Amino acid sequence: MLKIPEKTIQRLIIYRKILNDLRYFGETNLFSTKLAKIAGYSPVQVRSDLMVIGYQGSPARGYDIDNLETSIGSFIDAPKGEGIAIVGVGKLGKSMLEYCYWKCPNLSSIELFDVDSKLIGTEVEGIKIHHIDDIEMILSQGNIRVAIITVPPENAQDVAGRLILAGIKGILNYTPVRLKVPEDVFVEEMDMIVPLEKVSFYARQS
Amino acid sequence: MLKIPEKTIQRLIIYRKILNDLRYFGETNLFSTKLAKIAGYSPVQVRSDLMVIGYQGSPARGYDIDNLETSIGSFIDAPKGEGIAIVGVGKLGKSMLEYCYWKCPNLSSIELFDVDSKLIGTEVEGIKIHHIDDIEMILSQGNIRVAIITVPPENAQDVAGRLILAGIKGILNYTPVRLKVPEDVFVEEMDMIVPLEKVSFYARQS
Repeated sequence: MLKIPEKTIQRLIIYRKILNDLRYFGETNLFSTKLAKIAGYSPVQVRSDLMVIGYQGSPARGYDIDNLETSIGSFIDAPKGEGIAIVGVGKLGKSMLEYCYWKCPNLSSIELFDVDSKLIGTEVEGIKIHHIDDIEMILSQGNIRVAIITVPPENAQDVAGRLILAGIKGILNYTPVRLKVPEDVFVEEMDMIVPLEKVSFYARQS
Repeated sequence: MLKIPEKTIQRLIIYRKILNDLRYFGETNLFSTKLAKIAGYSPVQVRSDLMVIGYQGSPARGYDIDNLETSIGSFIDAPKGEGIAIVGVGKLGKSMLEYCYWKCPNLSSIELFDVDSKLIGTEVEGIKIHHIDDIEMILSQGNIRVAIITVPPENAQDVAGRLILAGIKGILNYTPVRLKVPEDVFVEEMDMIVPLEKVSFYARQS
């Protein structure tokens, strides 16, 4: 499949969130100019992004919100829902779990992994924590291709390697380590210290 | 001041983390090739980034780890430490607080804000939660230029506006809203759903 630019995918996801909000407030239609204004992009950008998913509005009524939201969803989402593995069930891992549990619209399953013997076998939000040694066995049973890594930096590369062996193809990396992964694995860097220090630096320049 | 590219600042911050790790394990010197390998960039890139801060290694011994770490720090860090305001003390806000509290090396102070009357006046990690209506008063007393926004999306733009009025120049935005801010305010987007959906999408393509 032709690789669609990351920025396009990212914007489509943002459009969907906006449409979802608007629908919640009872709106049914909107024009590309309004969507563009809320999203902070140009109307040309919005229209060209929606062409990627083969969507065109009506010149008289603009976009049908419900319909456009569904179209973006069928393009972006896994048809049977997304399974996610969270590795590292510390404070950040738990906060991610709750976030996914309550806010990820297309979530089908979550598996939790850690190495701390005090945690193994206990439950968070009704989900049992497994030992990371069982990761291949457990992931082979399901359809989980996405993992969130919230382990200490010194374990990050090792954990990533084990996840990839277990079939993971997409990683949200909450550690500062630049993970080495095969070309077919997509990594999104989510470390908090780097952006925080970057923001602090630029805040001082102005 | 000449604006240094974000990517350069980001790489310098990553180098520092690596140097810090290596020092912890007792290393004293390293060559640009090794730093490049760990960081995942080219040696040319590493050397050119360090030229930005006026740092050059010795051909025989490479970089002095301690010295280079300090040099990056004096370039990146606020001389008197960084003050941070966290707005929205829900689960994510608390998790960010603990993260900063324990892991931000250059932190000088944290202030917490919320609107929930049940939270106002209570403490987390010994830090009192203030009402957001007091934000201008409290921030005017200190030297806080950086804020982390972890409020519900519908309040994000309003909160950002109040923070900017109170003198904030850098924002870590944990909401999916694209904040509208003046040119001299630096915003780093930290929303979790957009990257998670992006990773899920690409994980399915491979």
